[in-house]
Amino acid sequence: MTTQQVNPKELMKLSAPNRSSFPLDMWYVAALSKELQDKPLARTLLNEAVVLYRTTDGRVGALEDRCCHRALPLSLGIPEETGLRCGYHGLLFDKSGKCIEIPGQDKIPSKAKVDAYPVKEQDAIIWIWFGSEEHPQPNCEPPTYSVHNDDNYLYDGDIYHYEAPYQLIHDNLLDLSHLGYVHVHTIGGNAQIHMNAKMQVEQKGNCVQVTRHMLNSTPPQTYTAAYPFKGQVDRWQEIVFYPSHLEIWTGAVNVNTESIDNPNRGGFHLKGFHGVTPETDETSFYLWTQASNPTSNPEENMKLVIEQTILTFDEDKTVIEAQYANMKRFGEKKMIDIHVDAGANRARRIIKQLKGD
Amino acid sequence: MTTQQVNPKELMKLSAPNRSSFPLDMWYVAALSKELQDKPLARTLLNEAVVLYRTTDGRVGALEDRCCHRALPLSLGIPEETGLRCGYHGLLFDKSGKCIEIPGQDKIPSKAKVDAYPVKEQDAIIWIWFGSEEHPQPNCEPPTYSVHNDDNYLYDGDIYHYEAPYQLIHDNLLDLSHLGYVHVHTIGGNAQIHMNAKMQVEQKGNCVQVTRHMLNSTPPQTYTAAYPFKGQVDRWQEIVFYPSHLEIWTGAVNVNTESIDNPNRGGFHLKGFHGVTPETDETSFYLWTQASNPTSNPEENMKLVIEQTILTFDEDKTVIEAQYANMKRFGEKKMIDIHVDAGANRARRIIKQLKGD
Amino acid sequence: MTTQQVNPKELMKLSAPNRSSFPLDMWYVAALSKELQDKPLARTLLNEAVVLYRTTDGRVGALEDRCCHRALPLSLGIPEETGLRCGYHGLLFDKSGKCIEIPGQDKIPSKAKVDAYPVKEQDAIIWIWFGSEEHPQPNCEPPTYSVHNDDNYLYDGDIYHYEAPYQLIHDNLLDLSHLGYVHVHTIGGNAQIHMNAKMQVEQKGNCVQVTRHMLNSTPPQTYTAAYPFKGQVDRWQEIVFYPSHLEIWTGAVNVNTESIDNPNRGGFHLKGFHGVTPETDETSFYLWTQASNPTSNPEENMKLVIEQTILTFDEDKTVIEAQYANMKRFGEKKMIDIHVDAGANRARRIIKQLKGD
Repeated sequence: MTTQQVNPKELMKLSAPNRSSFPLDMWYVAALSKELQDKPLARTLLNEAVVLYRTTDGRVGALEDRCCHRALPLSLGIPEETGLRCGYHGLLFDKSGKCIEIPGQDKIPSKAKVDAYPVKEQDAIIWIWFGSEEHPQPNCEPPTYSVHNDDNYLYDGDIYHYEAPYQLIHDNLLDLSHLGYVHVHTIGGNAQIHMNAKMQVEQKGNCVQVTRHMLNSTPPQTYTAAYPFKGQVDRWQEIVFYPSHLEIWTGAVNVNTESIDNPNRGGFHLKGFHGVTPETDETSFYLWTQASNPTSNPEENMKLVIEQTILTFDEDKTVIEAQYANMKRFGEKKMIDIHVDAGANRARRIIKQLKGD
Repeated sequence: MTTQQVNPKELMKLSAPNRSSFPLDMWYVAALSKELQDKPLARTLLNEAVVLYRTTDGRVGALEDRCCHRALPLSLGIPEETGLRCGYHGLLFDKSGKCIEIPGQDKIPSKAKVDAYPVKEQDAIIWIWFGSEEHPQPNCEPPTYSVHNDDNYLYDGDIYHYEAPYQLIHDNLLDLSHLGYVHVHTIGGNAQIHMNAKMQVEQKGNCVQVTRHMLNSTPPQTYTAAYPFKGQVDRWQEIVFYPSHLEIWTGAVNVNTESIDNPNRGGFHLKGFHGVTPETDETSFYLWTQASNPTSNPEENMKLVIEQTILTFDEDKTVIEAQYANMKRFGEKKMIDIHVDAGANRARRIIKQLKGD
Repeated sequence: MTTQQVNPKELMKLSAPNRSSFPLDMWYVAALSKELQDKPLARTLLNEAVVLYRTTDGRVGALEDRCCHRALPLSLGIPEETGLRCGYHGLLFDKSGKCIEIPGQDKIPSKAKVDAYPVKEQDAIIWIWFGSEEHPQPNCEPPTYSVHNDDNYLYDGDIYHYEAPYQLIHDNLLDLSHLGYVHVHTIGGNAQIHMNAKMQVEQKGNCVQVTRHMLNSTPPQTYTAAYPFKGQVDRWQEIVFYPSHLEIWTGAVNVNTESIDNPNRGGFHLKGFHGVTPETDETSFYLWTQASNPTSNPEENMKLVIEQTILTFDEDKTVIEAQYANMKRFGEKKMIDIHVDAGANRARRIIKQLKGD
């Protein structure tokens, strides 16, 4: 037996990443519509290198980001009316990934093709389907998000790249008790009130709902900047987890003025959409929008809301990336659970189940 | 059998890079003469860390870039008349790599020596010989390149570092059909004309010659900036591949004014020298000069030619590095050939043969 | 037998770094006191991720830099009077590493704790104890360094991060013959005089003392900038190596005016403290102070001394990091010894012995 039996390439193959690390047979958020204009967009999703593009007549497509000729990323190419043209030797691919033109050559070999992904643009969100071998084509419609079409709300958003696995973002979003420590200068307010707020966790199918009410609490800076509260407020936080995204709807009314259980409650509302899509096993995209209902000076107040949201989300990014870097540094050392982990742990069980683990 | 049998150091040794990845018994371009002045030059070539230096009396030397005492790079040392002195404890090495002085110590041990490489400076190019075990010393002279000594031409050049294996640069240079897609804003001109131009590929020994004539075509921006063409032109592209470098001579005359097969044809000429030298298995040096024959305002026109050349070569670098990053990302996935690959594929066969594969 | 028997994780485990690469039952320099103010300090030492902090009442603590709940670095937390509070969910840890508060939860599980390190602040230096399994708690006091408390001296210092193993810093500090080549523009002076100076090497226990006298030599720029020498000087260099740090006391008197063997000699003195602490197997911290006795304009002259010291230490850093990068590049290639290596080689034998190799 010699050391030659160890083939380094073989080792690499064993650990080569692919989509099978993640739940398949579901729609993921690939991009916000505003990202996809005249240039293609290179984005690794679920360990696969995808190019998203919009044809000159407005249709969205998603292909393997690699020309079958000499492997140039197709994201360096140019969208045309019928498809995406490679920027090296001009091969043209249609939405199905088939090569439909090789400049200077009459015959197009049948092997001239690239992988294609089902995509659907809806509610200003571009959804992508990563299927299992059993379901390469979608067996359901992407989730809807009507807030983006609601005239009572303004919204804006951004895409964050995370040096952390996507489930750490789920954990963070499902546990708003960290507001008092991480976000003490923005949306936090008093730490004790957050920690002691009664938290209700409910699961319906693959959906987890966490609700917290903080009655008679001091409104945080983001709230008072955007809305003319008179003093103490009754505040709610409603988090709904879906495997592809979270909806976090928070807000407040003046204390003791109305029931915050009423779906038609007034006051200040923040409706957050939080697409959380794995890039690789160790990195993620966080594609968010924040909608709000400012009563006066709507444009200006909305700008304030978005600025405050960015400050807040930057604080989370710092914490989550530091957390993951530390998890890698310390290896498989055990962690302990505390009371705030109830929602996050349910979401982790759902993801585990969807992966078939 | 335990996991202890797997020795990580052993694994690293198996994949440790060295010169044997490349054809050996030939001269490579190590540097342009203008690079080597009073300071030593550190350059990894064919996976080996080399220091190039010029003694105070003007002779060029090349040594292993590592002092035999405490491993400091000799490229941090100081060239003297008799050799190169280490910048840590002052050991002095002659051109053969022998230590000829240890400051403060009378006896010089016989092990006090470093590896030396045969080098030759010729035509403003510094050539280096690596050599197989059979031919540690050169068995031929380096190629000549008389354009650098031709009074009818001005020239300048630069050194590009590539995050890509050297053969991808060969591929690119041997296939000028990419001009219409990659260089559309510089030397490209019309894509269809490039793609449909008749290409002639000839092989003579280890040399591949690709010739393309584009009669009655629109001159690209670089040409019109440098030469007073009257309208359409007859254009030639002559590429000669040698294992160490390529010569790419292109140019044009006013349409239908003279035969472009005539070696003494007039018009506008670009004579490019393209040294392509592996740094490592995955990275390369591209050492180029561009010579031209501007008829009026020669200095100023030459400056324009070089500026346009740099824009063009930067476009190639972007494409080739993106291509290689993508090849690594997608692993050993197969590629398809198209009509433009004829020249490049011949060059690859020559390199394969020279390596003895 | 298949390649499946090779478990990449197993391989990583075999080479996973930990404190056992280093001598353990001794105090290391963790920080200079001035570094530790109101914010915690993250510092990897001997391959272990440590957070150093100072409670609001001034006591110094050192914990594993990882919250036991969700692995956030505790260095992102906030020191309080009773300990360090995590910046994610607010868990509070005392000096022994025990969790003493989980906000919003009454019961604190017994597993809620992190590792703690013995630390001691003394002479404006923070010392840390790692300890073997036999001696988790210190069995001796940290070294003293009275210069930091001596009213005849001013001092200042800094912390350098090195991309090199700590023993290369030992080598450099124990061999001042490099002054003539590395520090030719700062403290170097004439290279030949350095190389030919008689060097005396003595070992006492785990301590190596190297003494060099350079009589009737030209004072270097740092010296003349800080002290009014009249011309040639009698100069001394006294280096004392301890496994945790070196003391390098150098200086000079006007030539032939007094014995430089006299412990009460006058003239210009530089007293350097050089803490050398491994960060990882491949990186280090160099925590230094430089003390001096300027006779006139003490503040201004001290500033000059520190500026010159920084220039000098930067030169060493450049050389040592280049040396190590080159050692890695060339792998296990043998080195030769010369006369200047006597002191360094003794120090290496001491470290080897302390590690029990």
